[in-house]
Amino acid sequence: MRALQFRGAGSAPEVVTVPDPEPGPGQVLLRVTAAGVCHSDLTVMSLTDDLAPFPLPLILGHEGAGTVAALGAGVIGWREGDAVAVYGAWGCGTCATCAQGKENYCPRAAGLGILSPGLGAPGAIAEYLLVDDPRHLVALGDLDPARSVPLTDAGLTPYHAIKRALPKLVPGSTAVVIGVGGLGHVAVQLLRALSPARVIALDVSEDKLALAREVGAHETLTSDTGAAAAVRGLTDGRGAQAVFDFVGAESTVAVAGAVAAVESDIVIVGLGGGRLPVGFGALPVGTTVSSTYWGARGELIEVLELARAGSVEVHVETFALAEAPLAYERLHEGKVHGRAVILPDG
Amino acid sequence: MRALQFRGAGSAPEVVTVPDPEPGPGQVLLRVTAAGVCHSDLTVMSLTDDLAPFPLPLILGHEGAGTVAALGAGVIGWREGDAVAVYGAWGCGTCATCAQGKENYCPRAAGLGILSPGLGAPGAIAEYLLVDDPRHLVALGDLDPARSVPLTDAGLTPYHAIKRALPKLVPGSTAVVIGVGGLGHVAVQLLRALSPARVIALDVSEDKLALAREVGAHETLTSDTGAAAAVRGLTDGRGAQAVFDFVGAESTVAVAGAVAAVESDIVIVGLGGGRLPVGFGALPVGTTVSSTYWGARGELIEVLELARAGSVEVHVETFALAEAPLAYERLHEGKVHGRAVILPDG
Amino acid sequence: MRALQFRGAGSAPEVVTVPDPEPGPGQVLLRVTAAGVCHSDLTVMSLTDDLAPFPLPLILGHEGAGTVAALGAGVIGWREGDAVAVYGAWGCGTCATCAQGKENYCPRAAGLGILSPGLGAPGAIAEYLLVDDPRHLVALGDLDPARSVPLTDAGLTPYHAIKRALPKLVPGSTAVVIGVGGLGHVAVQLLRALSPARVIALDVSEDKLALAREVGAHETLTSDTGAAAAVRGLTDGRGAQAVFDFVGAESTVAVAGAVAAVESDIVIVGLGGGRLPVGFGALPVGTTVSSTYWGARGELIEVLELARAGSVEVHVETFALAEAPLAYERLHEGKVHGRAVILPDG
Amino acid sequence: MRALQFRGAGSAPEVVTVPDPEPGPGQVLLRVTAAGVCHSDLTVMSLTDDLAPFPLPLILGHEGAGTVAALGAGVIGWREGDAVAVYGAWGCGTCATCAQGKENYCPRAAGLGILSPGLGAPGAIAEYLLVDDPRHLVALGDLDPARSVPLTDAGLTPYHAIKRALPKLVPGSTAVVIGVGGLGHVAVQLLRALSPARVIALDVSEDKLALAREVGAHETLTSDTGAAAAVRGLTDGRGAQAVFDFVGAESTVAVAGAVAAVESDIVIVGLGGGRLPVGFGALPVGTTVSSTYWGARGELIEVLELARAGSVEVHVETFALAEAPLAYERLHEGKVHGRAVILPDG
Repeated sequence: MRALQFRGAGSAPEVVTVPDPEPGPGQVLLRVTAAGVCHSDLTVMSLTDDLAPFPLPLILGHEGAGTVAALGAGVIGWREGDAVAVYGAWGCGTCATCAQGKENYCPRAAGLGILSPGLGAPGAIAEYLLVDDPRHLVALGDLDPARSVPLTDAGLTPYHAIKRALPKLVPGSTAVVIGVGGLGHVAVQLLRALSPARVIALDVSEDKLALAREVGAHETLTSDTGAAAAVRGLTDGRGAQAVFDFVGAESTVAVAGAVAAVESDIVIVGLGGGRLPVGFGALPVGTTVSSTYWGARGELIEVLELARAGSVEVHVETFALAEAPLAYERLHEGKVHGRAVILPDG
Repeated sequence: MRALQFRGAGSAPEVVTVPDPEPGPGQVLLRVTAAGVCHSDLTVMSLTDDLAPFPLPLILGHEGAGTVAALGAGVIGWREGDAVAVYGAWGCGTCATCAQGKENYCPRAAGLGILSPGLGAPGAIAEYLLVDDPRHLVALGDLDPARSVPLTDAGLTPYHAIKRALPKLVPGSTAVVIGVGGLGHVAVQLLRALSPARVIALDVSEDKLALAREVGAHETLTSDTGAAAAVRGLTDGRGAQAVFDFVGAESTVAVAGAVAAVESDIVIVGLGGGRLPVGFGALPVGTTVSSTYWGARGELIEVLELARAGSVEVHVETFALAEAPLAYERLHEGKVHGRAVILPDG
Repeated sequence: MRALQFRGAGSAPEVVTVPDPEPGPGQVLLRVTAAGVCHSDLTVMSLTDDLAPFPLPLILGHEGAGTVAALGAGVIGWREGDAVAVYGAWGCGTCATCAQGKENYCPRAAGLGILSPGLGAPGAIAEYLLVDDPRHLVALGDLDPARSVPLTDAGLTPYHAIKRALPKLVPGSTAVVIGVGGLGHVAVQLLRALSPARVIALDVSEDKLALAREVGAHETLTSDTGAAAAVRGLTDGRGAQAVFDFVGAESTVAVAGAVAAVESDIVIVGLGGGRLPVGFGALPVGTTVSSTYWGARGELIEVLELARAGSVEVHVETFALAEAPLAYERLHEGKVHGRAVILPDG
Repeated sequence: MRALQFRGAGSAPEVVTVPDPEPGPGQVLLRVTAAGVCHSDLTVMSLTDDLAPFPLPLILGHEGAGTVAALGAGVIGWREGDAVAVYGAWGCGTCATCAQGKENYCPRAAGLGILSPGLGAPGAIAEYLLVDDPRHLVALGDLDPARSVPLTDAGLTPYHAIKRALPKLVPGSTAVVIGVGGLGHVAVQLLRALSPARVIALDVSEDKLALAREVGAHETLTSDTGAAAAVRGLTDGRGAQAVFDFVGAESTVAVAGAVAAVESDIVIVGLGGGRLPVGFGALPVGTTVSSTYWGARGELIEVLELARAGSVEVHVETFALAEAPLAYERLHEGKVHGRAVILPDG
């Protein structure tokens, strides 16, 4: 089959031909219908070979959707032709953490050699994708694969971050979203669908702020030194009960801390390397700060239900498999509008 | 192998010889070290063939422990010889409910033909037990199989009932346990380990009340018409913030309602067929009443951790496999002390 | 001042002149701007004098709004002229229950002689209302008193019932509202504002179902013997994750039980006297059933924030104080559209 | 009356005679039976006059217990002679935060001039204490005032920190307590009473570690550079699910971060000025870090219930009022064993 491989540090990914995978016992083979292109791949590809967290070459793509092409021995509950999305944060499935579906936090996966597709295991930007266990599939039904596939990461990651803060988002509360990119523009929609909070979006780009308003933000503000005062002004001086930072840079985590209310939740999702210092007197009392990774299996099911209800929509730009290298190039140049999605049959 | 089969309504179970099971892809074969004997089996065996919820003959036993004898194709994470307990409430593993480990409430299992061991699938009272998926195993480590195996049901079921009521069991609160049998005497210990609540145990038998005191109940009361007034007397008239009824008869659910405080939780676990009527004015305001079934996969892991910490101990009486029919006979006669456990190698 | 008094069993309430109240230490006197008329007053007035739960004559009205007319000695935090709504479920303010704002469940109020306005203490259908403590006031700001005052009961009561069930109302879930009257039509709006659940409204009147659709119900169904099957049909056979019964009659609690899903929450709010029996096998496993009363102090603040955000609107029909007896008459005849509100200055 | 006043930066507190306070409307006058001496007073007294957060002179003491000496006009629910403890984190009582009893996080108190006793308002180290509202009293009953009064801060503060982390402290989990002083030695007891977690205490002093073992710690470790590795060694490499830092210095917050498990809660309670940086990759994924202040009103009621049940005991050293300056001197020198308590009648 054809697949997009990352072959070595510093080099661009290439479309190559590799043997077709075959499903072993308990596995499921998918004919890929759509695969998402993610910023975090650029980070991985920028590491030197010494630092690369997994062996190369690697087929890219940790957001995948497809139709069931073949069932390995012993698999029940799915049939050939079923349209599915893939939960990519593969864990051991058995430990106390996985028993609650939080495979994204599985403490045993690394030790057992279990790796996520596109992040160690062969990824979704290919004609076929091998899924290790039927529990990692979620039925898509009539949902459009191209517009749904980004939900497996760009939807699930903000959903997980938001869900833990929901108890704070009572009527009269305020949620701040920093960074209205691939994840942030979904976060705005999720907040509107899940809570009665007022949503304030911050970004440095006026285009992104326009997008935020389009998808439901009540207020938008330029993310600069005046942003904290502006948020206080909009909230009777109280600040926001929940803050989600999808950039995670030094400058944005500082803004996150500055707009937070007493007893608020700050969740740093972005990989920007910023650090927010916590200790008595550093932030409003009772505030919690955390950094999350991807989401739980049950949460992906819930995200896709929101899509089914029309409550969340991802803006996508599609590419054929042969154009996948171009998609990464344009992503690198900041030229992708919304989320880039590869259609292997396109 | 030898196994204990229930062969038809009204007949006693028999030890028979059946072919040794072999693990298919994704399955695990256990050499059984211990299997629990449960009251609910008597209920099943008393039904007429028309009402029997599954095809016969059936190997009994829904509480199982063993050592891994063979791994089916594709199974990772376990090795031959590992000592394990079995989570018996098998669900589909994939749906939203199972994705949180609540396979006991899986809405798809029946439709997919998935049945629990001893409750439709071949059970644990045999030399070997086939487990459908490695996620249904929990490592036992050094725990004694005979004393641990009842925890997979007689421990997990009260744990699940208690866990949902924990937010009510703050310091100064009271928990009432009705029925100090196989499940109730574990419930008393769980309440002591998990909460600061005062524990009041009710039973009609003085022996059982003595057992309740021995395992940690603060107070014990005869479960009669004066019980409700006595509980009120011990709680400044407020009643109990949580009530667990392990009998579930008409008389005990009435007591449960009568001892409940405002905003309390009443959980009816017993299969006694009683019904507690709920509506405005029927019970103290804000009280919730529910009936639970078994427990979640993650909860079994937690129960076994409590055993490992020495916080819960089951009183058991052991029998060899050949004596299994006798164990059921004695259970039927009410002559089992604690929980009966079959040791196939005993 | 003029006030609407209920003077004895079976008699209609009358507008009378009574001495103006004066605020004692710690109390607040309001000039009433609006007071709600509630169905439950009819129930109280239908009792014989022997059964009347409080001494007569009594000024009616447990939904009140006003402007601060005078502050008793020692009151801080409010100023004359402030527009406020009244939290009516007065508790002792000091016990563990009140310390969490759940004064509606205060176990000490009755013993201390603390009664709610209009339900023992002089009520809000009058020119002035005495409030026992400044904590029972919530700032109205620019909200219209006439349209807001019903939120203190007809908004708060469903809000309290819904809030406890919110964890069940994840994406993909269904909420059923039975009875689209004063409380039910607010409940539909609250569910839409607070959760992503699909809302199905049931009523026997086609007019009420039209109202339900107008305020946001996704589906409406006639509440008859076919309702349960219809709900199952709309939910892939699963049923509803939360059911709110604002009628509470025998027939409606039966429907509530019949439409409930596994692990669902059923909340019976209506005073119709129906009883739903709970026990193993009576309802889908894991389902909780409860009956609630009014709501917590913090919850009223949240309800008014929803009104401020435009997320909830009560349909009201206004009457002058002199017409208050007529309002009760029309309520009794079922002729009030939405909620009846008395405007003492109207 | 005689009282201990702090009169100016850098000076030691003095016993002076001031006019007896009288209760205004809604207030309660206590005859003080016991008042606690707290480390944080030393911090306040070390500030220059410019930085002092409140006007001087000030009667010290934010931990108070007494008997009701007189009730202001309008106060109900208490009688002269009642033995009580004082909840000291006074808020406005009316806002959304106070409506849940979280007066420690009240956003309006400062603006309304509401200050805690001993931290702006006249404190408890005196013959009489004026309490602004009866809701700030909790019945002591038969509890010994001297041994109970530290629970109002040294008990409540760790209780609040622990309560938010309880969902993480399931069976098999580990809690780490850093600093076994006044608050830490109570925290160990609270953890044992409230959770099944294994408790590991860290301190630099062998005496304190001995105290930790005496009050229930399962393991104790010297808090040095090897502590993190030692905790990992005791937890199969996983680390602790909850970490409570009662020192809060740079060195201890670093230890807190180093011993934390995936998805753990770190609560920094100590005023040591340390800062723990949070961001992607800085700590195990999903970990939350927060800094808390005192506790909620309902939580104090719960702490006193634990004392009543014998689950928590504070080691105290008592002083007469005339010796109060000496108590602070010895506290400053690190010579107080447990908690210093002033007995005005002693």
